[in-house]
Amino acid sequence: MNGDENTLALGERGRPAPNREELVLERIERVRRSRPRLREELITLAHGAGGKASRTLVEAVFLEAFRNPFLEPLADGAVLEAMEHGEPAFTTDSYVVTPLFFPGGDIGDLAVNGTVNDLAMCGARPAHLSAAFILEEGFPIRDLRLIVATMAEAARAAGVTIVTGDTKVVQRGKADGCYITTAGVGTVPAGVRLGASAVRPGDAVIVSGPIGEHGVTVMLARGGLDIEADDLVSDTAPLNGLTALLLDACPGGRVRCLRDATRGGVATVLNEMAQAAEVAVVVAEEAVPVRPAVRGACELLGIDPLYVACEGRMVAVVAGDSADAALAALRSHPLGEGAAVVGRIAEDPPGLVLLKTGFGGTRIVDVLVGDPLPRIC
Amino acid sequence: MNGDENTLALGERGRPAPNREELVLERIERVRRSRPRLREELITLAHGAGGKASRTLVEAVFLEAFRNPFLEPLADGAVLEAMEHGEPAFTTDSYVVTPLFFPGGDIGDLAVNGTVNDLAMCGARPAHLSAAFILEEGFPIRDLRLIVATMAEAARAAGVTIVTGDTKVVQRGKADGCYITTAGVGTVPAGVRLGASAVRPGDAVIVSGPIGEHGVTVMLARGGLDIEADDLVSDTAPLNGLTALLLDACPGGRVRCLRDATRGGVATVLNEMAQAAEVAVVVAEEAVPVRPAVRGACELLGIDPLYVACEGRMVAVVAGDSADAALAALRSHPLGEGAAVVGRIAEDPPGLVLLKTGFGGTRIVDVLVGDPLPRIC
Repeated sequence: MNGDENTLALGERGRPAPNREELVLERIERVRRSRPRLREELITLAHGAGGKASRTLVEAVFLEAFRNPFLEPLADGAVLEAMEHGEPAFTTDSYVVTPLFFPGGDIGDLAVNGTVNDLAMCGARPAHLSAAFILEEGFPIRDLRLIVATMAEAARAAGVTIVTGDTKVVQRGKADGCYITTAGVGTVPAGVRLGASAVRPGDAVIVSGPIGEHGVTVMLARGGLDIEADDLVSDTAPLNGLTALLLDACPGGRVRCLRDATRGGVATVLNEMAQAAEVAVVVAEEAVPVRPAVRGACELLGIDPLYVACEGRMVAVVAGDSADAALAALRSHPLGEGAAVVGRIAEDPPGLVLLKTGFGGTRIVDVLVGDPLPRIC
Repeated sequence: MNGDENTLALGERGRPAPNREELVLERIERVRRSRPRLREELITLAHGAGGKASRTLVEAVFLEAFRNPFLEPLADGAVLEAMEHGEPAFTTDSYVVTPLFFPGGDIGDLAVNGTVNDLAMCGARPAHLSAAFILEEGFPIRDLRLIVATMAEAARAAGVTIVTGDTKVVQRGKADGCYITTAGVGTVPAGVRLGASAVRPGDAVIVSGPIGEHGVTVMLARGGLDIEADDLVSDTAPLNGLTALLLDACPGGRVRCLRDATRGGVATVLNEMAQAAEVAVVVAEEAVPVRPAVRGACELLGIDPLYVACEGRMVAVVAGDSADAALAALRSHPLGEGAAVVGRIAEDPPGLVLLKTGFGGTRIVDVLVGDPLPRIC
């Protein structure tokens, strides 16, 4: 034991009780005055440690942007008010898009709209979202604030609240800035029951607007390609307004299946339907809405727009005799102005998607094998 | 245009219609025969692309392990049966623990138990979970299968089903093998209303068992430290059985607040309560259960067990006159055998946690500032 330790030990033992209490009281005042403020400019591991820095980050960034009575207690989870009558729907998606910011949006509205849309595709009215962040050490808090602001705005636009969340921080080189996982809950109104297996021969296949804009925009935003397309922006948008109109216009099970055409694009969605319902999906290539900028970029990149991700477009299969009503309903909404019937469901060949080309030919639209556009969402 | 392309073009045009159809039919058969099988040993970007490889991974690994009627349609989200009467609870957490496998568990049961526990801490009965995976390119599918098997087992043990999910793949060096984000929904029975702000002077503070085992176990599993502790395993466990017993034993609002002592440990949880309720939490150091192996490791590492994460221990604050009933209820469950009253709630000094040490002294247990144990969960 060296002298210093001895002195300390003697001092501790030797100090009379009142002095000790004063010391504690002084410390109490010091702790109380140090109220949390977010001073850092970059995310540190401490922001994910659950202590003072985590709390400050949560209060200064997340609570500030998302504030609502369910989130406010900042407890382990949110206790909600009883939801509207019907079957609950529940979904989740992780977002790892790169770059984080791109024309028309960022990972924030993508993460909100994507989960809102997954609920809408179940026929549900989205109600509440959770948001879990995996941040890389060194990520700029300024960027995080921008992302969180976009999320808050997207949530407002979709009519949902972000009620619970989590933040983890990993060391430099163990993530790519910011990954977000959202989950969502909502309610499926009575009488609505959608699913790929409900699709049947004679049904009409509708897409809600021009396809491929999100995927091509993100691809071009990565740079390195000598393509400029100033008028291209991501189509990221909440589709719950559109699905509500559609379900109202085609009641009684006449809407068979809704799918948002994200990873793998329209082609993948159609293949999943064909396989689940054991039907053929026959698509007229010329009827599929594709903006010239998307078509041009796809040609240069050597990819088919049918495989390119949208984040605000859906495929709707409705009873054949409801196609007109469905189209009118979709077109009455700003996000459905470009809706079009692109094909029909047939009996044969079951499990496959056939594309009728402009030249009178037919080709099989198979599911994607590789990944032409990694980390698009 | 070179010769080959010419030949192809001529051949296509020159071929009579029936031949073309034969070609399509042949192709149809070939596509149909190629049913998905998981042949790869490592995760590739294609597994996250939403196409054939994604589908195969989901069917061969996730659906196989988690199978239940809600998950089976593999739609954008799960449509559930109406849940039991009460207020819905909703929570989420991301898991980035390293190493992925450690004595007593792995990231899989951690992700299930953690979210089950967050629901239980709201007083809810956990019902359904979502699971979203962010995988690094090159991650062994064998390891993924192990993790998924642990998740399935943990879900069974906690009485919950995993009903929806997502898989994203990022390039090598953009993650650390596997990150998992779970979200959970459950129902808070009528009459239960827990929260840090419900804590009041005179209440008893209980911990459900020895603390710090998860954090120390993971720390040691990282190696590089010359400490061996063969009998140390993570305490990861679902606490919903324990909370149900406790709420039954202390009805009518006598359970004030439940918190699982994860990141930041018991000290952080107590500080959050002290601040939210503007009360003092006075803890008797000698009453806090800490196993010798944990105490020893903490001394060598220079950390206080009060700040070390548990993943299967909770802090319960109950009305002072219910302490005995609460303790009896907890101790009747295998996960609560080591439960102990560790302190009480006082009026002064509001917002602080005071520790009465063995030597008759008092020290303030402040919230964590840095991060002594990053990526513990």
